[in-house]
Amino acid sequence: MTTDDQKRVAAEYAASLVESGMLVGLGSGSTAAFAITALAARVEAGLEITCIPTSERTAALALSHGLPLVDFTYPIDIDIDGADLIERRTLTLVKGLGGALFREKIVAAASRRMVVIADRSKLVERLGPGIAIPVEIAAFGQETVLARLTQAGVRPVLRRNGGTPFVTDGGNFIADCTVATPFDAPSLDARLKAITGVIETGLFVGLASEAVIGHEDRVEVIQR
Amino acid sequence: MTTDDQKRVAAEYAASLVESGMLVGLGSGSTAAFAITALAARVEAGLEITCIPTSERTAALALSHGLPLVDFTYPIDIDIDGADLIERRTLTLVKGLGGALFREKIVAAASRRMVVIADRSKLVERLGPGIAIPVEIAAFGQETVLARLTQAGVRPVLRRNGGTPFVTDGGNFIADCTVATPFDAPSLDARLKAITGVIETGLFVGLASEAVIGHEDRVEVIQR
Repeated sequence: MTTDDQKRVAAEYAASLVESGMLVGLGSGSTAAFAITALAARVEAGLEITCIPTSERTAALALSHGLPLVDFTYPIDIDIDGADLIERRTLTLVKGLGGALFREKIVAAASRRMVVIADRSKLVERLGPGIAIPVEIAAFGQETVLARLTQAGVRPVLRRNGGTPFVTDGGNFIADCTVATPFDAPSLDARLKAITGVIETGLFVGLASEAVIGHEDRVEVIQR
Repeated sequence: MTTDDQKRVAAEYAASLVESGMLVGLGSGSTAAFAITALAARVEAGLEITCIPTSERTAALALSHGLPLVDFTYPIDIDIDGADLIERRTLTLVKGLGGALFREKIVAAASRRMVVIADRSKLVERLGPGIAIPVEIAAFGQETVLARLTQAGVRPVLRRNGGTPFVTDGGNFIADCTVATPFDAPSLDARLKAITGVIETGLFVGLASEAVIGHEDRVEVIQR
């Protein structure tokens, strides 16, 4: 299967877990978009759900597919979202390449069950040196936040969109923070979040309850 | 001296610490407003400074007084700001009644010297049970953030402005979090900030370098 096929079969598997009456968190990004398509097909066939989108883009996509959206309420029954990296043993995730990490994390944290879906390239045995963790930071004072991220042991680069900083749905910036040395994800997450001006990190620790991975020839389900 | 007189003399003392060439952080609130007036008088008399405001309201006030404002740069030489509570021994502050805590904290953290100014009613021997700590939280998903604040041991109340939630300059909400039991400020700050959806807390630990307190009959300067 191609990478897109792997994403699609993982997304369809996750969509099959949804039952009528559920409140569903809709992730953002290319893999989550496959889940939205799959959910829309099930709704067309009679599934009755309400959905909470994690980004403006996802909201627009869901509306175009006729999915019923509601304002944030909780607990959310199931959240289906992609990830940039998934650590097999812990299901710790790195998210935020798409820039929607803050709402994605709030929805994940408010969900009884978070199903992360991905093609096999996203699954790693261990999150280690060399990875980059997206961190959402305040636009105001971003220079000092970048300096403090450096002091905390990562190498931050302000994400740009052409000549100007990339701006999130919340009006903030993203610093992509490369980690050079081995790290413990929970303590790194706490250290980065503690910095004044850091709004949220793209490390999702203890949030995913299961991962659905599309491989070349099969779908693998990993429970935490 | 009246409370306003106490604020004014503390503000004038702090303004006297400013020298030409300095980059000055301008706090928000009624006491910081006295500092802006005092700085404006010194600028009128030839003092050359540039200023960074911590709120839209402060920016407007500073402009109306002819103070030159610049976009955020750092390090800031001196930050002059008020506080709702000041703990004498540690100079730990509680801030955020005015709703500008996020930018105030970023500016304080980016300053070589932070001078907190207040009337004597704000000075306490010890920050203890019964105080309320303003916490800036994401508007999206605020219900879950309030629930998690409760789990973290405080009693949050969403701040309202008439019938609707109070909205900060950054578009966020404020939860006023009453602390019922004795606490260690640094660990409480870390515990609250770690919650997904918490943008910043109004506990300022290790940021104020000195406090200038207006008493009935004198100005008291407390160094940390």
